[in-house]
Amino acid sequence: MRVAEMNREALEAFAADCKKQYEAFQAQGLKLDMSRGKPSPKQLDLTNGITNCLSEDDYKAENGLDCRNYGCLDGLPEAKAFFAPMLGVKPEDVIVCGNSSLNIMYWAMSLAMTNGVMGSKPWGKYDKVKVLCPVPGYDRHFAVSEFLGMELVNVPMKEDGPDMDIVEKLVAEDDTIKAIWCVPMYSNPGGVVYSDAVVKRFAALKPKAKDFRIFWDNAYCVHHLVDNPPVQANLLEEAKKAGNEDICYMFASTSKITHPGSGIAVIAASQNNLAYLKKALGFSTIGYDKMNQLRHLRFFGGKFENLVEHMKKHKALIAPKFQIVESTLEQELADLDIANWSNPQGGYFISFNQKGCAKRIVSLCKEAGVVLTGAGASFPHGVDPEDENIRISPTFPTEEELQKAMDVFVCAAKLAAAEQALAK
Amino acid sequence: MRVAEMNREALEAFAADCKKQYEAFQAQGLKLDMSRGKPSPKQLDLTNGITNCLSEDDYKAENGLDCRNYGCLDGLPEAKAFFAPMLGVKPEDVIVCGNSSLNIMYWAMSLAMTNGVMGSKPWGKYDKVKVLCPVPGYDRHFAVSEFLGMELVNVPMKEDGPDMDIVEKLVAEDDTIKAIWCVPMYSNPGGVVYSDAVVKRFAALKPKAKDFRIFWDNAYCVHHLVDNPPVQANLLEEAKKAGNEDICYMFASTSKITHPGSGIAVIAASQNNLAYLKKALGFSTIGYDKMNQLRHLRFFGGKFENLVEHMKKHKALIAPKFQIVESTLEQELADLDIANWSNPQGGYFISFNQKGCAKRIVSLCKEAGVVLTGAGASFPHGVDPEDENIRISPTFPTEEELQKAMDVFVCAAKLAAAEQALAK
Repeated sequence: MRVAEMNREALEAFAADCKKQYEAFQAQGLKLDMSRGKPSPKQLDLTNGITNCLSEDDYKAENGLDCRNYGCLDGLPEAKAFFAPMLGVKPEDVIVCGNSSLNIMYWAMSLAMTNGVMGSKPWGKYDKVKVLCPVPGYDRHFAVSEFLGMELVNVPMKEDGPDMDIVEKLVAEDDTIKAIWCVPMYSNPGGVVYSDAVVKRFAALKPKAKDFRIFWDNAYCVHHLVDNPPVQANLLEEAKKAGNEDICYMFASTSKITHPGSGIAVIAASQNNLAYLKKALGFSTIGYDKMNQLRHLRFFGGKFENLVEHMKKHKALIAPKFQIVESTLEQELADLDIANWSNPQGGYFISFNQKGCAKRIVSLCKEAGVVLTGAGASFPHGVDPEDENIRISPTFPTEEELQKAMDVFVCAAKLAAAEQALAK
Repeated sequence: MRVAEMNREALEAFAADCKKQYEAFQAQGLKLDMSRGKPSPKQLDLTNGITNCLSEDDYKAENGLDCRNYGCLDGLPEAKAFFAPMLGVKPEDVIVCGNSSLNIMYWAMSLAMTNGVMGSKPWGKYDKVKVLCPVPGYDRHFAVSEFLGMELVNVPMKEDGPDMDIVEKLVAEDDTIKAIWCVPMYSNPGGVVYSDAVVKRFAALKPKAKDFRIFWDNAYCVHHLVDNPPVQANLLEEAKKAGNEDICYMFASTSKITHPGSGIAVIAASQNNLAYLKKALGFSTIGYDKMNQLRHLRFFGGKFENLVEHMKKHKALIAPKFQIVESTLEQELADLDIANWSNPQGGYFISFNQKGCAKRIVSLCKEAGVVLTGAGASFPHGVDPEDENIRISPTFPTEEELQKAMDVFVCAAKLAAAEQALAK
């Protein structure tokens, strides 16, 4: 029965029932964490072979370069070739970096603030600099821009990506808008796959600010949960076709492919952008960890196809967890018609929406020992205007823990709905 | 005989003799590189065991943390404890970072530009920001500041460190001076060890700019070439005594201890500075490579004493190279009285000075197949006002190559002196 159709008596009975269930959970002294998109230990085990896949005398790149020593600023040539298909670009379009794509995104944006893009006026020299933030989105993206003093402007997400009518209008009118954050494949948290039409509209964007950049964080580009994953138009390729190739920086990493703490991040961009980025990079490092690049190459036998196969092992471990979340939500909440949620084809998150109840649900869960990402985290400044969105991260807990956590979650969602209805 | 004492006839004979020797070198088609301070392959071999000293199931920190996964922003506790004695500080004063100290120095200075220090007004918001550059000094330091838009101000080096009378006067008078670059132990390139008196004057510095920071790059703190190396007062400790502990950031790395491409960099500072730096760091990464921290801990058995012992193996390989340079200079140039040079007790460089001849010597060497660091590189903007300084980097070539390169070098130095004297 839909909660909206319950009369006062039915609502009170429903609330009492939820409350009783909830107190039973509280009594169990649970301690479960679904707060961040972390791979589970079993997923990490898939890559343990990387730790010692290099022998003591295996330190030469294909061109004879000694990977132990300084140098090779933009990455080993074979590492560029290995990662190029991940971003759908040519090897020469790639810089192979250190262990963190967040770090190079921060660097690229901080660099724009101090030195501009491709030699333009530094963004930090303008009175006001704005960045577009598709919401709900990735909290750490928004935090980077906020920390660097940029103004965050919400843009609503639709089912096929950010609302491009709004994006196009805003960037055409306002030259203080210098950037937009995008997670084009299995967006965090909504799981949205940007449609080819959206990718092409991004590629053809004509911002008033000539120093505008799309920060295209393709964090989940190989993180499929289905057998026949969607295929997406490539932004850099489309931008080249549109004569607009300098408009984007594209990022990816192996953080959720190998070991998050010791993976490899990459950046791809036009040759003009890369020339400037490499020059700038030369001031901030003599080179990234080439032994770790070699380690990744050896672990995957130097073939990107092997990485794609490796991702199927991750899928085998995490798809059942997404299934637990989705089926629990479906079984327990669908008939009540109080919430909606994503059923993503990939990525790390399920996005859950229940209007006016997000904070209450997160708080109820916490008091019953289940830690979720903070309500509002997916919005700039942590402010969700509808207080509706919760990001569910199912990968880290075991299936047993996850089921328990979801039992608490749906109980909290029901209780919050009942309280909300009774307060009307 | 001193060149200054030669009459015209003697000079012409000397010049002709140098010229003949030089042409003989040119005919040999040499190809030797002494341009950068890179460890030799034999030095890198000393650390080959680090590559596979971790087994597949060795990924837990002492506190049980899974080093393969995300997190642990400021480094493993045992890594902090391991590196603390290198910088002469307490474990809690340390952040353990990635593979490049240049990278964290760039980050710290860039951060000051975008966000200030400890929440002060961002340096980038001032019309003018200056940095003091003790000369001769490290080209990459100066380049970082120049790239970030700072004005570089030369400060002369003396035998016991930068001229502190000038430093104290400048920072007391001019609040646009926000920083100074220092290599306190075996400075690059002069090999100067700052005296305790200089360290204490730095510790007690009272700059007009309250957001002034000393960038203390202790890159060579364990890189001794003598059996009883100098012991230096500790800047942070002295600054604490002076009630001035927020004045410095201290940096070091294992780049010339283990493998330069895949080492560990560290930063140490006061608790106030660290609190701000950690907060800021949280926007730019989720954590550095903890598996590599573990790898370093295992390789050295978790004991700093073992790192100190390891440095003796480096010394055994490179001290003879410094000997080759110094004895060749002594034998071939001392009597002529045309130049002076350092005989450092540690570090990676010999600093050579011959007034008005540096560019000519570097150019002559290049034309005879010996690549040196560019003349002027040790000065801001590459401008050596006396055109006298050349940085000699003896570590990378073999002893045989180095002797050959030095034979060319002294020949070029003599020829340049002869040309200079004849042109008068």
